Amino acid sequence: MEKMMKGFAMLKIGEVGWIEKEVPTCGPMDAICKPLAIAICTSDIHTVWEGAVGDRHNMILGHECCAEVVEVGSMVKDFKPGDRVLVPAITPDWNSLEAQAGYQMHSNGMLAGWKFSNFKDGVFAEYFHVNDADGNLAILPDNIDPVDACMLSDMVPTGFHGVELADVEFGDTVLVIGIGPVGLMSVAGANMRGASRIIAVGTRPNCIAAAKKYGASDFISYKNGPIEEQVLAMTNGKGVDKVIIAGGDVDTFEAAVKSVKPGGKIGNVNYLGNGDYIKIPREAWGVGMGHKQILGGLMPGGRLRMEKLGSLVANGKLDVKPLTTHVFEGWDAIPQALQLMKDKPADLIKPVVKLY
Amino acid sequence: MEKMMKGFAMLKIGEVGWIEKEVPTCGPMDAICKPLAIAICTSDIHTVWEGAVGDRHNMILGHECCAEVVEVGSMVKDFKPGDRVLVPAITPDWNSLEAQAGYQMHSNGMLAGWKFSNFKDGVFAEYFHVNDADGNLAILPDNIDPVDACMLSDMVPTGFHGVELADVEFGDTVLVIGIGPVGLMSVAGANMRGASRIIAVGTRPNCIAAAKKYGASDFISYKNGPIEEQVLAMTNGKGVDKVIIAGGDVDTFEAAVKSVKPGGKIGNVNYLGNGDYIKIPREAWGVGMGHKQILGGLMPGGRLRMEKLGSLVANGKLDVKPLTTHVFEGWDAIPQALQLMKDKPADLIKPVVKLY
Amino acid sequence: MEKMMKGFAMLKIGEVGWIEKEVPTCGPMDAICKPLAIAICTSDIHTVWEGAVGDRHNMILGHECCAEVVEVGSMVKDFKPGDRVLVPAITPDWNSLEAQAGYQMHSNGMLAGWKFSNFKDGVFAEYFHVNDADGNLAILPDNIDPVDACMLSDMVPTGFHGVELADVEFGDTVLVIGIGPVGLMSVAGANMRGASRIIAVGTRPNCIAAAKKYGASDFISYKNGPIEEQVLAMTNGKGVDKVIIAGGDVDTFEAAVKSVKPGGKIGNVNYLGNGDYIKIPREAWGVGMGHKQILGGLMPGGRLRMEKLGSLVANGKLDVKPLTTHVFEGWDAIPQALQLMKDKPADLIKPVVKLY
Amino acid sequence: MEKMMKGFAMLKIGEVGWIEKEVPTCGPMDAICKPLAIAICTSDIHTVWEGAVGDRHNMILGHECCAEVVEVGSMVKDFKPGDRVLVPAITPDWNSLEAQAGYQMHSNGMLAGWKFSNFKDGVFAEYFHVNDADGNLAILPDNIDPVDACMLSDMVPTGFHGVELADVEFGDTVLVIGIGPVGLMSVAGANMRGASRIIAVGTRPNCIAAAKKYGASDFISYKNGPIEEQVLAMTNGKGVDKVIIAGGDVDTFEAAVKSVKPGGKIGNVNYLGNGDYIKIPREAWGVGMGHKQILGGLMPGGRLRMEKLGSLVANGKLDVKPLTTHVFEGWDAIPQALQLMKDKPADLIKPVVKLY
Repeated sequence: MEKMMKGFAMLKIGEVGWIEKEVPTCGPMDAICKPLAIAICTSDIHTVWEGAVGDRHNMILGHECCAEVVEVGSMVKDFKPGDRVLVPAITPDWNSLEAQAGYQMHSNGMLAGWKFSNFKDGVFAEYFHVNDADGNLAILPDNIDPVDACMLSDMVPTGFHGVELADVEFGDTVLVIGIGPVGLMSVAGANMRGASRIIAVGTRPNCIAAAKKYGASDFISYKNGPIEEQVLAMTNGKGVDKVIIAGGDVDTFEAAVKSVKPGGKIGNVNYLGNGDYIKIPREAWGVGMGHKQILGGLMPGGRLRMEKLGSLVANGKLDVKPLTTHVFEGWDAIPQALQLMKDKPADLIKPVVKLY
Repeated sequence: MEKMMKGFAMLKIGEVGWIEKEVPTCGPMDAICKPLAIAICTSDIHTVWEGAVGDRHNMILGHECCAEVVEVGSMVKDFKPGDRVLVPAITPDWNSLEAQAGYQMHSNGMLAGWKFSNFKDGVFAEYFHVNDADGNLAILPDNIDPVDACMLSDMVPTGFHGVELADVEFGDTVLVIGIGPVGLMSVAGANMRGASRIIAVGTRPNCIAAAKKYGASDFISYKNGPIEEQVLAMTNGKGVDKVIIAGGDVDTFEAAVKSVKPGGKIGNVNYLGNGDYIKIPREAWGVGMGHKQILGGLMPGGRLRMEKLGSLVANGKLDVKPLTTHVFEGWDAIPQALQLMKDKPADLIKPVVKLY
Repeated sequence: MEKMMKGFAMLKIGEVGWIEKEVPTCGPMDAICKPLAIAICTSDIHTVWEGAVGDRHNMILGHECCAEVVEVGSMVKDFKPGDRVLVPAITPDWNSLEAQAGYQMHSNGMLAGWKFSNFKDGVFAEYFHVNDADGNLAILPDNIDPVDACMLSDMVPTGFHGVELADVEFGDTVLVIGIGPVGLMSVAGANMRGASRIIAVGTRPNCIAAAKKYGASDFISYKNGPIEEQVLAMTNGKGVDKVIIAGGDVDTFEAAVKSVKPGGKIGNVNYLGNGDYIKIPREAWGVGMGHKQILGGLMPGGRLRMEKLGSLVANGKLDVKPLTTHVFEGWDAIPQALQLMKDKPADLIKPVVKLY
Repeated sequence: MEKMMKGFAMLKIGEVGWIEKEVPTCGPMDAICKPLAIAICTSDIHTVWEGAVGDRHNMILGHECCAEVVEVGSMVKDFKPGDRVLVPAITPDWNSLEAQAGYQMHSNGMLAGWKFSNFKDGVFAEYFHVNDADGNLAILPDNIDPVDACMLSDMVPTGFHGVELADVEFGDTVLVIGIGPVGLMSVAGANMRGASRIIAVGTRPNCIAAAKKYGASDFISYKNGPIEEQVLAMTNGKGVDKVIIAGGDVDTFEAAVKSVKPGGKIGNVNYLGNGDYIKIPREAWGVGMGHKQILGGLMPGGRLRMEKLGSLVANGKLDVKPLTTHVFEGWDAIPQALQLMKDKPADLIKPVVKLY
């Protein structure tokens, strides 16, 4: 294998470019992979232009892709060079105390299951490193298109984790705030968990069209007044059973708390980039005692989750194609795709770049 | 039965006194009871002097007592006049949609399972009304002293609900913020759910002494700096597994979130009387994704809970005597006991008044 | 209201016929209803010809219907004469200790939430009695056909309860044993809870066709050898994540235990009519330690559940029409419909009789 | 380090003796340890004299000990030679799919988290091998006696897992069947989870004395008639909320099912050595629908659990000394201690051998 590789990197806060680096080395449990297709995430934008993970220099970007294994460590049992794989954005240390407690995404530190383009180089490179290959990779089913497979790295598991946090049950009325790609997957997941009514907050026409396909029944625009007022009007003043927050900011929790019934659950999967405090309205939260549960979490990650969510796509239960509005080809398209995500034109949901 | 009765009431915000009222009437499912002993709750103080439930006129106070049944409705099967009973502060409408969903304390409205001295007259009266006697009363075990029984109305179930919300498990390190009577019961409950280490925040010597009896191993004073700094210092920077909030205000959540591990749970059972927003620190909450669960709820209420918690006292598993620092006798002592709770001298935990 | 009414009854074990009875009286919390449409359940057959609930004389049959309210008790708040309602087969006593513990279907005794045609007359009558109208009825949404509404009494909630007991999660492979009407609803419910692959055991062509519509991907016939061998062959020897038992007998559990992975769950909603013991194979159950959870339960019942499941039908998320293969009209068709259920021709799934 | 070591082994079914073997080699994630003290488990007896894990030749016995680390692999971060450690009987492969699903004890196969003296040599040797040291060892707290520490390998976690499976809650009445060392820990654990009444089934006087210390309130002898009859008599015919099975055989489940309320849970942690089928009585199980949940599982294992349970002993919340009725010293005592466990004299609970 060659020793040097190129990768598309954050050079410093606010600046990106191609760099050359050594191909990463493969530990006994690890794998070295080459991406087959990559997708751009809003987090890449946050990382570069908002310094979301702090200042980083010459760090290769990207955490969404599918890939081919090119090398595995001596202890890896279930994967071999040539295998085509699903790659989760979150690759936990499975023997950590946090993983043993059921919170693998926080293995060895809060959010520290997120390694790509955070603690180490990401996947926008000729080769990238995967810790614990047996624990974190999953075979790419033959009938999943590599473009679709990129949606399984982060969009599907994150959107679906919102559904898990909010604990959607048969017949629930669910409010989904934000219908970008993660929110759309929350809509799809809520529908797939048995929600009878899904009220989605969003305004972009192509997102609304996709949300309808995924099962949303009602739409709210934040332009028409406070979300909670619209929600209460739509539910005879009763509010919703569950809320999934997949967009907005620290103020969004006020609408969520005011929109949900006592005993309801709010699941946040949105990155909150600014503000000192998340705002939980005291009275609407039952002066501390309303049983309106506030949950927020990074998506789980790891192999089992990839296999399970991958099986939904492979078996035709979940169609992720509506997410990938812009598909490019070849390494040279990566900067362009990133720029597109930064510019966020009205018709964009997700840009993907096919590499092989 | 006589038609008129006296009761000790909130005359208006800031003013209390004895009033005369008609004895309440008994519906088909209800019971009329006379209190054997009553206890004063901090909520009585909030109700009168802070207007916590709004302006009320001539509303009889009190929601903590044990009692004797004097009349039952035609549909009541399990209780009869003369029965001595435990009376929960929260008496749900069991057929409500909220109760069917597992949130009986919010039956027919957020917090609306709380009826005594909120939506109707309370228990500081010669007679009081209990809705759904079969669903809400429990036989007072012979070997429970009526003074102790008063602690089962609110202090025990509320403190223990904090433990349930925080989901204390074997070997957990638990932070209990506030060691008034509710916090003490949270300490006792955390210990009884298998916590290995209980860090209590509080300064009053008699509360600290009681907390030690109930299983607290470490103590923190808010006077010695931010709670979270002390907690992190005591736990090698790891933080605690669970937090129970039984005191403080909307700012207390900042300390709780900063003290708890990712994947940890914060259970609030404290009434939050002031402030527009509860403050959840964005970064310490994992920028929205730290899986630090924020739960807050009114205690469940109802008969089953009374029977189960009562059995802990009856079987010697829980000793509530350390809570009742001041025991009075006779109706005339009620105003004095209420004033004592308002003044809150250093040696007070709970005042109880024996009536028969 | 007239005083006498006719009803179709079990005269004694093995014998049915029309009888005359007094119209039931309405207690303060109750409702008297007249059925708009009724459905026959296999349980009706078990009751009459197998003596499943014991010997009964002149007991009016039936527990599946939708209805119109004709009278309500003085304490009923949410329903009035003329309301068209969904009627659950299980009508719990909501203030019972069992309901307070979350097991309302066992209120005041194991299985005792089931009252119609068990402890009192059923719904195949001009009028029938509903205990706790506010807690147990639900408004029939305008856009649900009364024929479809009958499926909400028992088939939908029972089938879906199997899914809840088996705790189907995103991406699970689920085995559904039995694809009569309950099993079909288990297939639909498993699909609606995110199963990626549903293996159904059954042979009748119209049931297989319906199961495919509801999301089943693979089919097994017990005629082709032991179920577990076929399941293991279809899953590369791994077995399934979850099993729902909606048919078979006490021996069926052997196949279920042998088919499920360690950590898997088996949810039974099938009435077991014969045999002293349910057979749990010792070795396949991990010599007692395989974490193969065995759960079995009567469906929950009550108003909230009716509202939630009804909303799935009303909002087009669940189509129950494939269940009702035989629709009759008029009172006189009831005996015929019952006989049809007893004969169980190959093309039968459910017979319904429209009455108004 | 020397190359050869001695160990006390199962030579074949029914025969034990000292053998010499090579010191095991240490993989990158592993540790080699020497035991400080070892305890004999009934499983050792089952293994040798009942062939419980099949025929094995020259397999070193034992899975209960505490130890000193003598060598660690290159990837081990948290342990080093000289560290004194708690060693769980169950040492999972933490990156397996089963562990990712929360069932680490079944990692890579049902029950396959149990490796010592099952798939590899056990701990009754000068040196033994631990897979995934960071994931499976825990530092031995200074204030835990090595003799006591041996109880943390299996007795405490197994007994406490019964409590977790049965999901003991505040105020529950719990039946514990079997009060050998595991059952005693189930009693202690049930008490520590808030049971108000613990009914224990057993007859040996020293076990009864220990059970009383651990919180049992009532005792039943199987010699006085069927367990369920005694239980129902003691509970006014109501039965218990939860059952923990820590002794008996496949027939014991009949008593458990008949003793528990609808909605109750039965948690088995007992090894079932004989019989084709576990007997679940059909009628008492509610003809399939009584919500009497039947759970059985191997204890979890791994580092976090050792740390958490160890903290209970270290902090004085759990006293395991009553378990160790027979303490020996020196390697030569191992055969004698094993024989003692086989003979099971009336005064035996657990034999421990101190080695250093």
